[in-house]
Amino acid sequence: MEEVDHLAHERQTAEFDVEAMKIVWAGSRRTFEIADRMSRLVASDPEFRKDNRNMLGRKVLFRNSLRKAAHAWKRINELRLTEEEAAMLRVFVDEASYVDLHWGMFVPAIKGQGTDEQQKKWLSLAYKLHIIGCYAQTELGHGSNVQGLETTATFDPETDEFIIHSPNLTSSKWWPGGLGKASTHAVVYARLITDGQDYGVHGFIVQLRSLDDHSPLPGITVGDIGMKFGNGAYNTMDNGVLRFDHVRIPRDQMLMRLSKVTREGKYIQSDVPRQLAYGTMVFVRQAIVSDASKALSRAVCIAVRYSAVRRQFGSQDGGPETQVIDYKTQQSRLFPLLASAYAFRFVGNWLKWLYTDVTQKLQAGDFATLPEVHACTAGLKSLTTSVTADGIEECRKLCGGHGYLCSSGLPELFAAYVPSCTYEGDNVVLLLQVARFLMKTVSQLGSGTKPTGAAAYIGKAEYLLQYKCNVRKAEDWLNPSVILEVFEARAVRLAVICAQNISKASNPEEGFSELSADLIEAAIAHCELIIISKFIDKVQEDNEGRGIKEQLQILCNIYALSLLHKHLGDFLTTNCISSKQGALANEQLRALYTQLRPNAVSLVDAFNYTDHYLGSVLGRYDGNVYPNLYEEAWKDPFNDSVVPDGYHEYVRPLLKRELRFSRL
Amino acid sequence: MEEVDHLAHERQTAEFDVEAMKIVWAGSRRTFEIADRMSRLVASDPEFRKDNRNMLGRKVLFRNSLRKAAHAWKRINELRLTEEEAAMLRVFVDEASYVDLHWGMFVPAIKGQGTDEQQKKWLSLAYKLHIIGCYAQTELGHGSNVQGLETTATFDPETDEFIIHSPNLTSSKWWPGGLGKASTHAVVYARLITDGQDYGVHGFIVQLRSLDDHSPLPGITVGDIGMKFGNGAYNTMDNGVLRFDHVRIPRDQMLMRLSKVTREGKYIQSDVPRQLAYGTMVFVRQAIVSDASKALSRAVCIAVRYSAVRRQFGSQDGGPETQVIDYKTQQSRLFPLLASAYAFRFVGNWLKWLYTDVTQKLQAGDFATLPEVHACTAGLKSLTTSVTADGIEECRKLCGGHGYLCSSGLPELFAAYVPSCTYEGDNVVLLLQVARFLMKTVSQLGSGTKPTGAAAYIGKAEYLLQYKCNVRKAEDWLNPSVILEVFEARAVRLAVICAQNISKASNPEEGFSELSADLIEAAIAHCELIIISKFIDKVQEDNEGRGIKEQLQILCNIYALSLLHKHLGDFLTTNCISSKQGALANEQLRALYTQLRPNAVSLVDAFNYTDHYLGSVLGRYDGNVYPNLYEEAWKDPFNDSVVPDGYHEYVRPLLKRELRFSRL
Repeated sequence: MEEVDHLAHERQTAEFDVEAMKIVWAGSRRTFEIADRMSRLVASDPEFRKDNRNMLGRKVLFRNSLRKAAHAWKRINELRLTEEEAAMLRVFVDEASYVDLHWGMFVPAIKGQGTDEQQKKWLSLAYKLHIIGCYAQTELGHGSNVQGLETTATFDPETDEFIIHSPNLTSSKWWPGGLGKASTHAVVYARLITDGQDYGVHGFIVQLRSLDDHSPLPGITVGDIGMKFGNGAYNTMDNGVLRFDHVRIPRDQMLMRLSKVTREGKYIQSDVPRQLAYGTMVFVRQAIVSDASKALSRAVCIAVRYSAVRRQFGSQDGGPETQVIDYKTQQSRLFPLLASAYAFRFVGNWLKWLYTDVTQKLQAGDFATLPEVHACTAGLKSLTTSVTADGIEECRKLCGGHGYLCSSGLPELFAAYVPSCTYEGDNVVLLLQVARFLMKTVSQLGSGTKPTGAAAYIGKAEYLLQYKCNVRKAEDWLNPSVILEVFEARAVRLAVICAQNISKASNPEEGFSELSADLIEAAIAHCELIIISKFIDKVQEDNEGRGIKEQLQILCNIYALSLLHKHLGDFLTTNCISSKQGALANEQLRALYTQLRPNAVSLVDAFNYTDHYLGSVLGRYDGNVYPNLYEEAWKDPFNDSVVPDGYHEYVRPLLKRELRFSRL
Repeated sequence: MEEVDHLAHERQTAEFDVEAMKIVWAGSRRTFEIADRMSRLVASDPEFRKDNRNMLGRKVLFRNSLRKAAHAWKRINELRLTEEEAAMLRVFVDEASYVDLHWGMFVPAIKGQGTDEQQKKWLSLAYKLHIIGCYAQTELGHGSNVQGLETTATFDPETDEFIIHSPNLTSSKWWPGGLGKASTHAVVYARLITDGQDYGVHGFIVQLRSLDDHSPLPGITVGDIGMKFGNGAYNTMDNGVLRFDHVRIPRDQMLMRLSKVTREGKYIQSDVPRQLAYGTMVFVRQAIVSDASKALSRAVCIAVRYSAVRRQFGSQDGGPETQVIDYKTQQSRLFPLLASAYAFRFVGNWLKWLYTDVTQKLQAGDFATLPEVHACTAGLKSLTTSVTADGIEECRKLCGGHGYLCSSGLPELFAAYVPSCTYEGDNVVLLLQVARFLMKTVSQLGSGTKPTGAAAYIGKAEYLLQYKCNVRKAEDWLNPSVILEVFEARAVRLAVICAQNISKASNPEEGFSELSADLIEAAIAHCELIIISKFIDKVQEDNEGRGIKEQLQILCNIYALSLLHKHLGDFLTTNCISSKQGALANEQLRALYTQLRPNAVSLVDAFNYTDHYLGSVLGRYDGNVYPNLYEEAWKDPFNDSVVPDGYHEYVRPLLKRELRFSRL
């Protein structure tokens, strides 16, 4: 096909330096360069082809996934890639597989919970992939309530071993990725029982399969839990089921950094602070926030480009029809998502910093900020993944009928993304944790304890409860300090109202439970405020490059004002703003959409995604959608024959009136 | 497995007569009995098994679908089912296939647009399935803008034929269901050109494939457009692509009821009113609303039952944990959807009546109510399908991790359902049509034209603009007339504000376009009001049976008050209610959840769905979830072998350090 850039006219209208924005998006020139190199490496290697993924049956799909993982490992070694480069390469391979859990959960679990000796032994095997590990926590009967897990690890002092056992059906391990077919080992979470006493849930390294022939070891029943949402999507992953029938492991395979069992069977807590475990949680969740901005930006990139290509209605005098991106209805759904992608990117980068900061503090024995950091990351994980999941589906709808085709890439992206809302903390459960933190913070307001970090604004409660927004004309809404204070006032007021209502209940727990739907809304207000404040910080940084600061300012304002419009009830009911001010915000929002419009395509170009990574005919860089959509259809094996399998048995007899049973 | 009803305790707490509610849900005892009989017929016939659907490759899936369609046809004939029974049977077969389009679009198109003679000829073939037809309207380049279709039908007076042609790539027919592989004929929409003049889009009956061997006829290129969202889902359907290379058809295959071309090539409008065509549109859209209540109620049924089975947290003294349905966060997401399912069911039944009513009026030459009826059905199609699509996904999330498994039935239900938001009118485009109608109605307020039907309340604009809600305590919100007036006031005020803002623009079209996002909100307010008012009517009907009226009242109030909470900004910004009244509504809503709780499982039992139709391990009638979830996993062919295909090539070499390329 001819190489023409069908979006060239869109790119010419950009009012900023796209190359400079690419660096801003990446976070640094170095990160940009690594991402750029790795994404091109993957895109140019036919072994990493993924456009046929949704046409493959499960077994072939999985075999394919094993092949890619091995090929990636080969390339990582051949090119002597650094750990950072290797991780980036895996991102761009863009296929959920056992290696994700091996590197993302198994290795960190041993690092976080293993003794130095255990780390030395197991990590050296894991780093070379001489064992493949997964993370076997969730069970059929327990997900969110980790303390309710039922698998047991009973110490047998006679043999110096733990006996791992699944006492009932609901204790079956269920969901761990990489478990079903690939892993040789697992970190298994089980109730530690010694000397007749239950010490609660601990981690144990358990070998599952023979290193010779991959067959499950005696006492182990293991398999895949079956098909999941979507065609390809997460079905490249072998989420597994696992049962133990009195499986014995040496005592030293209990992860003993935080507590241990002695040769005599005595349970001893180590002097390593248990709070260190929260560091890992913060790490995992900041990575999830970072992934949210990746997933949302991919969907937005596809929807923005296709909305610029697609034309419908509005032809005058035989001229071309209107680009759908020019419709206000399209803009009011699409541009807030574009702004959210940027917002999540920046808050994700900030969380990376926060993780480093809290790790240093923890190592120095300073645990004071941990509850706030924990609430912050839990809340941001919840908010960003929920918005991203819904946002991907919204982008799919914004692509009209063609978005429903797998070749649009969006169904796949959605189905592969949505588990983020559930894993590593169900999003509702997490928001309730944030709410609990907020209630505690509010209750301590009089006590002299000063809220810190992202919750510091609660310390200004007295001021914020009195605050009156002074917006008088639409442009006043462009003032970052106005936006910040209005969102602070909303967050603090919702929290205080909840606290007041809880205090009316017969007991606080009952009140908390009764009001939990309202508490969720207060938690969301807190999280949205954090994201806005970090976006404002980002805009105020020294952003080099033509027009960068202006575009970020527009995106930041769209992010904030579209949230204000979405949650207008919150702001009005707490008297943070008046109806008139709400209407002015909406007016300003429309003006911002108009300002953003000529930059929309370039703002998604700044994500620097290859066509391979996007995996979407609709989102192609060159905008040459229709011929490629057409070509793509004919590649489906279903089109190998014009007369479909089954015609002779099930269609012809109807048409030929040859159905024996016909009584017509 | 033992047959125990794990939900028996839930069923004992019902405060109403479930059997009576089944009749209310069905609409009449007769409809209940037909649905009950047909659903059991399908469920008990192993040929209609569908639990393996998500594990099949596309070709096998499609072959399977052809087999089921033929088997259904066999049973329909053997049992001499009525048209109504046959349609119901197809519903419970629950698999998208060519027959849907044959009966749902091809036949109605000929009925609506064909002359008596054409109907006689073609319908007699179609009714016996001696031809299979589809509806070829949408093209690669045009969906919503039907007038922009590019396929041409040029009359050739020399041969008395039309030449059907695809002049460019974007004119390729794209999406029609049943087109890709199954159909022998299509109603093709093309621009009628005669005597050098373009008369716009008209329908033509075109044979696509040989009735002998099913091969495409000369000049016809036809195929499937490839994989769509989901595993099984809509992939049982052969949505197709079709191109014409100067295909000739006899002149009398133009559908000539509304206009015709004479032997000489003269274009003549018939005296049949063109408005009659809208009757078909009303029919199709009321059917879609009816389907929305079916789809949403299935999802809700699954989520309610599983939420009663699932327990997490809150165990005291070693007792059982709390059922997740007892959490207010779960209730505040789930119960409004349960209420919506009932609301959509009742408004769907009302639309059936409306269709009959408008058809009688049209036949009597009374077109006055048509614009209102058209706006009403367009809006309700949009609102109910959007809420249903989002609601199914919300139900999936409410089932936690297990909802992501195909065996939960929810991924399949979602992926198969979401196209409803796009087909038969994109939901946003439809809401803009409603908004246009509202603006026209408001603009005519002074002129003496009285708004009719579901828009009659706009006639009370003067009163409603003055209206002050007099709620003083939470229970005041239980008064139906309060709810009705508050929602009327909100709808009218949003519409009037839009009209005022439009009038400020330099011209009305520009104003309409600039404010279209606000107009969408006004349209939604109008539609929600209709649904509430029909629900209130239903509650006030003579509902026999113990507790029926009370339960419907609770559901109706939950539906209304949860919408009020969701759109609180609308109500506050238009001064329909005060912040205090909003808080009281929320308080009442929580009380209603508590009232609903003991009836929840029985309220979904009243849908009378078989386990086959639900197709969900989580939603099983007997609540015996865990053992069946476990069994289901092992049925997946992926578990046929413990060592997966690909192990020897791609896993063993890593573990055995045998990768030639390894440099570690």
